[in-house]
Amino acid sequence: MKQTLARTSIRYLSDKAARFVPQSGVYPKGFVAGGIHCGVKKDGKSLDLALLHNTFGKDASAAAVFTTNKFKAAPVQVSQRIIKETKGSGINSIVVNSGNANAVTGAQGIKDAEDMVIVTDSVLESKPSSTLVMSTGVIGNNLPIDSILSGIPKLALSHLGDKHENWIECAQAICTTDTFPKLVTKQFQINSDTYTLAGLCKGAGMICPNMATLLGFFVTDAPVSPSALQQILKYAVDRSFNSITVDGDMSTNDTIVAIANGAAGGELIELNSSCAERYAAIQKEITDFAQQLAQLVVRDGEGATKFIKIRVKDSLSYKDAKSIASSVANSSLFKTAMYGKDANWGRILCAIGYANVSNGNSVIPSKTSVKFVPVDGSESLQLLKNGEPEKVDEERASQILEDEDLVIEIDLGTGGGQSADFWTCDLSHEYVTINGDYRS
Amino acid sequence: MKQTLARTSIRYLSDKAARFVPQSGVYPKGFVAGGIHCGVKKDGKSLDLALLHNTFGKDASAAAVFTTNKFKAAPVQVSQRIIKETKGSGINSIVVNSGNANAVTGAQGIKDAEDMVIVTDSVLESKPSSTLVMSTGVIGNNLPIDSILSGIPKLALSHLGDKHENWIECAQAICTTDTFPKLVTKQFQINSDTYTLAGLCKGAGMICPNMATLLGFFVTDAPVSPSALQQILKYAVDRSFNSITVDGDMSTNDTIVAIANGAAGGELIELNSSCAERYAAIQKEITDFAQQLAQLVVRDGEGATKFIKIRVKDSLSYKDAKSIASSVANSSLFKTAMYGKDANWGRILCAIGYANVSNGNSVIPSKTSVKFVPVDGSESLQLLKNGEPEKVDEERASQILEDEDLVIEIDLGTGGGQSADFWTCDLSHEYVTINGDYRS
Repeated sequence: MKQTLARTSIRYLSDKAARFVPQSGVYPKGFVAGGIHCGVKKDGKSLDLALLHNTFGKDASAAAVFTTNKFKAAPVQVSQRIIKETKGSGINSIVVNSGNANAVTGAQGIKDAEDMVIVTDSVLESKPSSTLVMSTGVIGNNLPIDSILSGIPKLALSHLGDKHENWIECAQAICTTDTFPKLVTKQFQINSDTYTLAGLCKGAGMICPNMATLLGFFVTDAPVSPSALQQILKYAVDRSFNSITVDGDMSTNDTIVAIANGAAGGELIELNSSCAERYAAIQKEITDFAQQLAQLVVRDGEGATKFIKIRVKDSLSYKDAKSIASSVANSSLFKTAMYGKDANWGRILCAIGYANVSNGNSVIPSKTSVKFVPVDGSESLQLLKNGEPEKVDEERASQILEDEDLVIEIDLGTGGGQSADFWTCDLSHEYVTINGDYRS
Repeated sequence: MKQTLARTSIRYLSDKAARFVPQSGVYPKGFVAGGIHCGVKKDGKSLDLALLHNTFGKDASAAAVFTTNKFKAAPVQVSQRIIKETKGSGINSIVVNSGNANAVTGAQGIKDAEDMVIVTDSVLESKPSSTLVMSTGVIGNNLPIDSILSGIPKLALSHLGDKHENWIECAQAICTTDTFPKLVTKQFQINSDTYTLAGLCKGAGMICPNMATLLGFFVTDAPVSPSALQQILKYAVDRSFNSITVDGDMSTNDTIVAIANGAAGGELIELNSSCAERYAAIQKEITDFAQQLAQLVVRDGEGATKFIKIRVKDSLSYKDAKSIASSVANSSLFKTAMYGKDANWGRILCAIGYANVSNGNSVIPSKTSVKFVPVDGSESLQLLKNGEPEKVDEERASQILEDEDLVIEIDLGTGGGQSADFWTCDLSHEYVTINGDYRS
C-alpha cells in the first residue's frame, strides 16, 4: 500500500490516492513550496524534506498549536520557542523532514532542530527565527543532520515553486506511512475580497483527539493579525484535527501551523469589534477547510477501510457531546465491528455509557437514541429509540454497512441542543500489520 | 481457537488451556458449583448456564463491585439492588448465563433477570433475594428466558457438586470468546486456621481498567463480615481486575462478586481494630489471589500472543503510577509493536507523555528511565536513562521480545517512591478477526 512518488512523474499507487489527491489546485499568492529526497528515508528516493516559504515582501503572521505530550520532540520545543519569541510575527518559512521524528534525542536533537532553522533562514536570506521546524517518523534516533542541512539549500534554491506539482511534492515530502499526500485548496470571498487557502497535512498513525494530532499547515493570502490567527486556528483545530481519531495515540510531534501573508490585499483582520464580521467569516472558512483536511487523515487512517462520522445531538454541552463522540470513535470493539460490517450497536451504547462526561445528566439511557444514516440519502436505520432496542432489519443494516462511508447519529434527548461531530475509521488487520512492523 | 468442552470429557483444544487450566484443585468447604448447556448458545452444546451455591448452614457474606457504565445491563441493576437491600448478608447463590448479556433489553430484561433470581431461590429453597445474577454475551437481544428458567432446576438439582470437574464446568459455563475456563484455587493460613479460596472469571473482550472489568466471583470458607468483605474486595479489585486491560473497552455487565461462608470456622473477621492483623492477612491473600485470577484474563486476551506487565516505579502517587501504566498498557501502537516483537520504545515514552496525571511533576522527561526486564532472570535491557536514549543492542532486544512474557519497568525518578503494576497483552491480527465477526 505504501506509495512512492517519483520526483518527476506523480504516480498514484492506491485507489484512495486516485480519489483523494487533487489533479489541480488554486494556490494563495506569495507562497512557494517543494519537496526533495535528501537522505532521511532509507529507500534512497522517497521525498523526505519539505519547505514552504512566503515570498511576499511583507512579514507574514503565524499561529501554531502543539502536542501536549510531556515528551515533546525537539522541533516542537524549538518551534514553540520561536512562536513565543516572535509572537507569531515574521514567520516566513516552514521546514519539515519525514522519516525521523527527532524525538527523545537529547541535547543533540535540539541543536539539530535549531540548525535546520538557521540554515533555512540563512539560505532564504531571512531574519533569524523566521522559520518553524517539524519532524515526523521514528522516535529516538538522531537525525542524519548532514543530509538534511545539505538538502535545505538544494531544495530552497532549485526545487521550490508555486505550481500544483510543487505543492504535491511538498505534501508528499511530509508523509510517513500515509498512502497518499494530503493537499486541499479553496478560494473564498469576504465582502469583495477574494482569498485562497492551501493546506497540507500528514497523518496515518498516532492520531488522537484533544490536541493538534499530527503535522499540518495551512497558508492563506488573506491579511490576518497573529493574535487573531492564533484564536481562529485554535477554534478550527478543536473542531477538526482535535475531532478525529485513528488509534487514540497522541504523538510527541503533533503540530499544526497557519501562516497568513496578506498578499491578496484587503484590510487586516484583527481581534477588535470593527473586524467582527470579517473575523467570523474567515473563522468559518478556515474551520470548514480544516475539517476537510482533517478528514483526509481519517480517510488514510492506517489500514482503514471505513470512514465514519459520529454525530452526537441534543447534548447539554458541546464538551460532553464531543466526549461521547470521541468515546465511540476510539472504541476498539466498535471499530473492529465496523471493519467486520457488523451492526453491533451494543458496542456503540457501551462506549456512550463509559464516556467521560462532566454532567451526570448528559447520558440518560431512557432518552438515548441511535441510528445509522447512510450517506447516499436513503432512509436511515433506527437502532435504539429512547433506550429501547428497535427490531433491526439486519439485511438493511448489512446493506448500509457495505458502504465505505457511514454516519452514526446519537441523539441524547437531553433538551440541551448542543452537538458535536467526530470522525473515525475502522480497525483492520492491515492496521495491525502496518504497526506490528513499522520500523523495519 | 474457540473451545468447546464436552459435558463429560474435558478436552483442551488450545495450548493456553493446557498450560493455564488446573488439573485439580482444593476447594473451600460448603460450596457446590456446576454448569450445563440450557439453550442460550446456538451450537446446542456449549455450557451456558452456571450456578454456585453455599450449602453451609449459615448465611454467607457477599460483596460486589459493578461496572460504572451508564448503560448497566439488567442483571447488574438487579444484583445491585439485592446487594443494597440485603447489605450483603445471606447471599447464598450466584446464577450466570453466557451467550447473551441481557443488556439494553428494556423492562423485559429486568423481569428476566429477576425471574432468574426467583427461580434459583425457589429451587434451592432459599429466602427471596439470596441469589445474585449475571449475564455475558451479545448486547441488545432479550434472553431465551424459557430455556434458562427450565435449565435452572435441572442444573440445581442434578448437576451441582464439589468436585474439580463441577468447578471446571461452572467456569466453562460463564465463558464467551474465552479460549479456556479460568479457575484458580488456593489454601492459606491465618494464625492456626486454614482457609481456602476458589475463583472463577471470564474475560477476553471488553476488558478495561478503572472498574470491575469482567465477570468473576471468588468464594472462601473463611468467616468475614459483609462490610469487611466489601472493603477487602474493593482494595483487591483496584490492584487486580482494575489493573488489567485487553482493549480498553468497559462493559455494560462487569461484575465481581465475593462470597465468604465461614464454613472453615474461626473467629469472624470484621471491620474493627481487634481484627486488624487478621484483616490485613486475608486482604493480602485475597489481593494476591485476585491478581492471579485477573492475569488469566490477560493471558486469554482476545488474540493475545504476549503477556506484559507494566511496572511504574518511584511515582509521586499510586494513582499517577497506575494512570501512566494504564496509558502504556492501552496504547494500540505499543500493543501492535509488542505483537510485531519490535523494541519500539518510543511508543512507550509517547504513551507515558500523554498519560492523564494529576500532578504536573509526575512525569519529568529528564528523570524518566525505561527498561525491558526478561522474566527468565537474565540481564535487563536499559532503553532510556534519565530521558536520554541508550544505545540499544537490537539483537538482545529481539531475543527478549521472543518470549511470551515481558516486564516493562518505567522508573519516574521523582523520589516519591510509589509504584503500580498493570497487565496487558498485545494487539494482534487475531483480535481483529475475533471482533470483526463476533456475532455471527
